[in-house]
Amino acid sequence: MNLQAYLSKNKKVIDRALDKFLPEARSSYIAKVMRYSVFAGGKRFRPALMLLVCEALSGKVKQVLAAACAVELIHTFTLIHDDLPCMDDDDYRRGKLTSHKKFGEDMATLAGDAMQALAYEILLKETKGVSLQYKMRALETILEAIGSDGVVTGQVLDIQSEGKKISLSALENIHLKKTAALIQAAVKAAAILCGASTKKITQLDRYAQHLGLSFQIADDLLDYTSSFAKMGKQPGSDKKQKKSTYVSLLGKEKARQLMVKERDQTRRAISFLGKKGKRLAELADFVIKRER
Amino acid sequence: MNLQAYLSKNKKVIDRALDKFLPEARSSYIAKVMRYSVFAGGKRFRPALMLLVCEALSGKVKQVLAAACAVELIHTFTLIHDDLPCMDDDDYRRGKLTSHKKFGEDMATLAGDAMQALAYEILLKETKGVSLQYKMRALETILEAIGSDGVVTGQVLDIQSEGKKISLSALENIHLKKTAALIQAAVKAAAILCGASTKKITQLDRYAQHLGLSFQIADDLLDYTSSFAKMGKQPGSDKKQKKSTYVSLLGKEKARQLMVKERDQTRRAISFLGKKGKRLAELADFVIKRER
Repeated sequence: MNLQAYLSKNKKVIDRALDKFLPEARSSYIAKVMRYSVFAGGKRFRPALMLLVCEALSGKVKQVLAAACAVELIHTFTLIHDDLPCMDDDDYRRGKLTSHKKFGEDMATLAGDAMQALAYEILLKETKGVSLQYKMRALETILEAIGSDGVVTGQVLDIQSEGKKISLSALENIHLKKTAALIQAAVKAAAILCGASTKKITQLDRYAQHLGLSFQIADDLLDYTSSFAKMGKQPGSDKKQKKSTYVSLLGKEKARQLMVKERDQTRRAISFLGKKGKRLAELADFVIKRER
Repeated sequence: MNLQAYLSKNKKVIDRALDKFLPEARSSYIAKVMRYSVFAGGKRFRPALMLLVCEALSGKVKQVLAAACAVELIHTFTLIHDDLPCMDDDDYRRGKLTSHKKFGEDMATLAGDAMQALAYEILLKETKGVSLQYKMRALETILEAIGSDGVVTGQVLDIQSEGKKISLSALENIHLKKTAALIQAAVKAAAILCGASTKKITQLDRYAQHLGLSFQIADDLLDYTSSFAKMGKQPGSDKKQKKSTYVSLLGKEKARQLMVKERDQTRRAISFLGKKGKRLAELADFVIKRER
């Protein structure tokens, strides 16, 4: 099976699990609002990555499935809030109306809040075949990636850098927190839930960090060349144009070189996995070649 | 020591712990935004209640202190989001500018998001002298109180009932979720962390539910009679006036009777504690007599 086929198989596994773990749409209004965004065509990149890590470590799907869904919910909740008028003010995402355009800002804000809590609840209640201790460590790892040293601060720095010319290292710092932090937490949580050693977790963390950065550079390159049809959202919206990107700071060619360099470092980080790391290495290639 | 003195002693314990558990203001911008709201003069009602439950069950402060701070952070995060222009649109709370008036809507939204994650992180990392299993159950109890069957749905129903005449049972349902759910979770989490039996937890849950409702009715009565000076926020703001309250549905006298009835039920629920329940019974009186 090639990686594409493999990823779409994994996507189905994740979609089924999300459908099972989320409250039914008819159970409450907010459940309906949450489901709209969760099933709005996400690629399930982070959970698919977690399933790949699980496989590379010879773990079982049931050990990471709930955590994978939790990470997808966290990702979705941050997107809902990032799309709000007070932040990136996006009307569309993946060709569909954003949550606040569909349900109003109040409901979008609340759906994000409920989704964050639900993510942790699912991780705690639906993770199977894992000791309490590992479950707790996985949850802690994910929680650490959100707050004042992670995703939220990435978003804060991103907002604060609007309209400013920032340095490359400042841009990297933004994306380490805004994009890489959750990808790293996802990979580490999967490794913890599969009982990996500290040494292996550290290597996988490094893999995920470089993967996250190459993912972001690829995003910037895609944004630069994309059209609405391909992206499913408005390219270069006002606020977006005011933000520094790898392309705006380095130019297209140098950004591409940096992306390839990051990709190479992902490979090095997982050399310890030998043949078992094949899919993860392929994913690192996929990330920099993908069309969204 | 009378209850007032006791509560202010507990408040100091909580404030010190919050100061210790929260990231330093200089560590990140969002830490500064979070600290502003956390230290904006909250009465620490929920954490103080948890310390009282702990004492009534002969537990140790260190067993519940982190969870008490977590609950206060969750309460604060919901206030920050509820105050946003897309929800209750409040400019002041406790006489100080609300987070979005001080730091902007984007930062207020993000501070709330970070605070939710931080709350759970603190509970997991800083709870002492408790088994992993109890810690997990306490966390699950709190998580269940947030999402689609708890606080968030309470807020949704509250927003959806604006400008409508609703029934008394619909109003009670709103406040069971919006106000009582977190108070119940706080009390149950404290009881779990102190190793209480299922039977005792059920009784304390009942206590907390009636306490939450009497708390809300007292709030409505206060809102009805208060002035800006007393409340520290604008009484009867436009959106507020469009909402049903116990006073608008029942009139002042019947609302007061219902409040006393709820208070009486709190007493019955904790009769099993005997003398040890004295403070909790006093608190139920305090709640309906308080000035904010």
